Order: sequence, then C-alpha cells, then structure tokens
Amino acid sequence: MSHDFIVRLHDTDAAGVLFFAHLFRHAHDAYEGFMASLGQPLDGLVRAGCRLPLVHAEADYVCPMCHGEAIRVAVVLAALGETSFTLDYRFEDGSGALRARARTVHVHLAERGDGDRSAAALPEGLRVALDATPSSPPDEGATTARLSTTAPKWTEQPDG
Amino acid sequence: MSHDFIVRLHDTDAAGVLFFAHLFRHAHDAYEGFMASLGQPLDGLVRAGCRLPLVHAEADYVCPMCHGEAIRVAVVLAALGETSFTLDYRFEDGSGALRARARTVHVHLAERGDGDRSAAALPEGLRVALDATPSSPPDEGATTARLSTTAPKWTEQPDG
Amino acid sequence: MSHDFIVRLHDTDAAGVLFFAHLFRHAHDAYEGFMASLGQPLDGLVRAGCRLPLVHAEADYVCPMCHGEAIRVAVVLAALGETSFTLDYRFEDGSGALRARARTVHVHLAERGDGDRSAAALPEGLRVALDATPSSPPDEGATTARLSTTAPKWTEQPDG
Amino acid sequence: MSHDFIVRLHDTDAAGVLFFAHLFRHAHDAYEGFMASLGQPLDGLVRAGCRLPLVHAEADYVCPMCHGEAIRVAVVLAALGETSFTLDYRFEDGSGALRARARTVHVHLAERGDGDRSAAALPEGLRVALDATPSSPPDEGATTARLSTTAPKWTEQPDG
Repeated sequence: MSHDFIVRLHDTDAAGVLFFAHLFRHAHDAYEGFMASLGQPLDGLVRAGCRLPLVHAEADYVCPMCHGEAIRVAVVLAALGETSFTLDYRFEDGSGALRARARTVHVHLAERGDGDRSAAALPEGLRVALDATPSSPPDEGATTARLSTTAPKWTEQPDG
Repeated sequence: MSHDFIVRLHDTDAAGVLFFAHLFRHAHDAYEGFMASLGQPLDGLVRAGCRLPLVHAEADYVCPMCHGEAIRVAVVLAALGETSFTLDYRFEDGSGALRARARTVHVHLAERGDGDRSAAALPEGLRVALDATPSSPPDEGATTARLSTTAPKWTEQPDG
Repeated sequence: MSHDFIVRLHDTDAAGVLFFAHLFRHAHDAYEGFMASLGQPLDGLVRAGCRLPLVHAEADYVCPMCHGEAIRVAVVLAALGETSFTLDYRFEDGSGALRARARTVHVHLAERGDGDRSAAALPEGLRVALDATPSSPPDEGATTARLSTTAPKWTEQPDG
Repeated sequence: MSHDFIVRLHDTDAAGVLFFAHLFRHAHDAYEGFMASLGQPLDGLVRAGCRLPLVHAEADYVCPMCHGEAIRVAVVLAALGETSFTLDYRFEDGSGALRARARTVHVHLAERGDGDRSAAALPEGLRVALDATPSSPPDEGATTARLSTTAPKWTEQPDG
C-alpha cells in the first residue's frame, strides 16, 4: 500500500528542505491510508473509542526532500504482536530512489475499570486484517535491526 | 539546558492527547535553545550557510501529554563525532515524571566544489562548544543502546 | 481548479474538529495546485527568487470538519492588480455543502538595489496566466465584500 | 496581556520567512495565554465540554518575520457580544515595530437536545471575565473596520 504527496512550501524550512518533523506527519497520512485499505479506517476506530497510540517513532533521512518533489510512501507491516504492531515506511522519489525511512510502533490501549487505559489484545478485526497483509520483504531487514544501520547517502555513517 | 512549553490545543488531536509528530517540533525548539546556550544560535548558522540536518530522529512515548500540561525538556549531548553529534531529550512533567524521550542525530554538510554537499568536520567553534557541555548522565544509558529498551509506563513492552 | 484532501488526525484537535489554522495550510496546498495548473509552479518561482508573499489571509468557518471527511477546495481568482492578486477558496464536503471559505492576497516583491524588496509589477508570464483564468462567479460576491457577511450555519451572525 | 515567542526554524519556509499559516498558531497560543490570564484556561473549558470555535480568522502581514526573531503578541478584546467575542492581536518585534495583526472571532456553541450544537449565550463566568478586561485602544480602530485598511509596510496597498 502506498501514499503519494508533493512536498509543499509549508513542509520546507529556511534551510530549503523538508523539515524533519513533517516527515512523521506524512508517515501518519500513509498510516491512515493503510488502515483504510484494511477496512479499518482510523477515524472510525477513534470515534469508537479505540486507541492505538504510538509508543515509538523513528526515521532516517537519506537525502533531503525539496519543495515541489513528488514522493511515494510505501507502508508495510513489520511486526504484529498480541497488543501492538509495527509499520515500516519507505519514502521514494519519482525515480524510485530512497529518500527516507520511518518506523512507527502502535499499542492498543483499552479502558480499564478505573478509567485509566492499559495495553490490551488488539481488536480481533484489526488483528485479522493486519495478519492478512503482505509482510515486509526480506531485504527490508529484520524488525529487530535498527533502521539506521544503512549509511545515509549524503553522509558517512554518523561517527558519534 | 532545558526548554519549557505548555501543551497547546494545536498540539493535540481528536484522540485527546499530543499528536506524536509534534513532539519532534518541541524537541527542535529545545535544540534551538540548546544551540543558543552554546553561543551557536541556529538561525545565525543557517544564514551563514552552515547545514546541520538530521539524519536520524526517534522518540519513545511513555505517557500521553494532555492539553494544558506544563512540560520541561532537558537536552544533553549524547555523542560527539568528527562530522556529527547526537542529542538526547527528556520530556518531564511538573512532578518530574518522564513522559517521553527523543534523540536526534545531526551531520554537518559542507558544500563541495560541484555544488553538492557532503559530510564534513564540524565547524571548530561548534565542536569546541559541544565538547564543553556536560555529558549525558550515566543512568541515561550508553548512546548505542536503543531508546526503547525501557518499557513505556502504560504499556507492556511492545511484543511485536 | 480544485484540490482534494481528507481531514487527517493531525488536522484535528482535542475539541474533535479541524484546528482552524490548518485550514490555511490546506488553502495553500490548493494555491500551489492552482499555480501549477497555470503553468507557474510555486517551487520554480521560489527557486528563481520570485517572492509572492501573503499580505492578507482570512477565513470563515461555516461547519466544523471532522476526522476522515473528504473535502474539496475550489480556487478562483477574485482580483488581479498591477502588483497583487487575490484568491478565493471554497471548502465543500462530498455533498457539495459549504464548510468554510478563505481568501488570500499575494503581492509580488522584487529586490531593489539596496537588497530590500518592495512591491513590483507581477511577472508578465504570471499576469497573463492569471488573466486567462475564469473569474469568480457573481454569486461569490464582490471582492470588496467582507467574507463573513453570510452567517455561519451553526451560529447566528456573530453579534460582537 | 501579551505572549512572547521566538521564530523557530519550523516556523519558516523555503522562502526564508515565517509561513503565513503559522502566524495563526502563534495567535492561538496568545489566545490560550489570554484565557488563562482571565482565570478561564481553555483546556479546562474544553474538558468541561465548552466549545468556543472560531467562526472567523484573519491576518495582515506587515513585514516578514525571520528565523531567530523575538516577537511579542499583544492580545486585546475587540468586541463582546451575547454569544461571541472578538480578539485582536498585534505582533511586534523587539523595537516595538508592528510586524503583523490578526483577529479571531469565537462563538459559544452549546449542545442541544438533539446532540447538535448551536450558538448560545457565553458562559456567565467567561462573559464577566471578558467584560472586565481592558478594551481595545482607540487607535486600533473600530471593530467594524477591516484590518487591512492600513497599507503593509513593504507594499503599496494591494491594488486588486
């Protein structure tokens, strides 16, 4: 499943390229498209009281994205657990070159008797739908691998 | 060095809590405050043509942040390399409880003769200023440890 | 010319509806699409040093927009002057109902000898392209009329 | 009542100055500070089910705001009605020069028996608190005057 967007002026900053935090906004747009493609639109889940907050998000920036560029975000399920799932995102330009990657980890929080929420088994419909999606291709790396093990294109491996 | 903010209505979403991507905006505000505290304000660096883009960003969300909450972000240098540096951020509420953590990795990109940019040694003034900052306290963990090894407060360890 | 978008989670706030300022982000996306449709893509103009900043923006909110709703933004030229142009935006839902209106006024700023910028005649190519677009339909009201003269659907005319 | 902020990198765009829509985010921050100063913090009102959505927003941009600039936003009540109120905002730099103005109109929406909301008298506590605030200074102009009657500093009066 993929999501397309154009880098808009408000995505960029005075340094002339996409401001890093906006990548996560686009990843979340792709996540919403992914959920809709599963027949599990996020707006319906939220309205029904279902909460799937992120407990982790990360991104690697491979090559700056500039105003006006057309970007495609491919979303794949990277891991499916009892109470959580992990999605991987590849941001590619029109020539198919990798520009950035991102990962988000979502946990299902259910209300407890005391009004608080705690992690609970994923809703059955969502679990089945996620389980039926194509899994991450092998060359995407194991889900336990850190995203940033591949060196960014315009940098040496950060040496810190 | 720390940066304070209040969770505003626009930070939240229809699920009632801070939208995850906005955490990175606040982390960047803290980064800008950190750079100013070093005598290396980012706006001056950007105007002078210096580029320190993020090549990696990540966050762990421990406990949702709600509209109106006062949050303090503590910034520390986690690693300093030849061409890059890594910052860690702790988001704490008024009682000192950890609400989220984030990490950003910045690489210095210098213009080459051909107009492109590639990783280059950090500007000397910046390197010296970073080197003089207090280092990460030991209990923050080694910089090579994944941020998410500690389980979020309101979830079991994601089990994916 | 029109631009479609879906109200995403990050567009909403804890009150459950689109946060007002994000309407202007969507209006600007529609503006960028409008400029591209004229053969005057904004990213190319910005890169060429052309500046068309907004000197005025306004919006009337007729009916709240909710997470998951599909919205169409119609853009029309409302006025064309020597140094400026005005665009009007109608935000409609799937049934064609008006949800919001916006207006933006853009001025062409050209660099002067002293490094500052001041208002200057629109670039000829842009002026010709704008002049060839369909004009505002009459029922949209004269450009001098205040947008908010029509009462919002879910309010009486603000009585302040 | 005033609210201070620094123009951050994410406030700017590739044209090098504050992206116009972000001005409204800062205006809303000032509005939240204004409400807190009245003893009517917005987060408490929202949590209590009170809705004060904007039905109108507008801004005039007098002089571009750049990365790193310190800006003060002064908020004053411009009009108080039975069901609505209007706030005016002046954005000034460190030297007191006007950089932008904005106005927001808020209407109180109360739930009706059928689940919908419609305009209703302002909550008494809020109305009294608003009524006790200093009114708009005369030189700010009558509330019925269009904000943009004063020509922006770096433009001629838009001539559209």
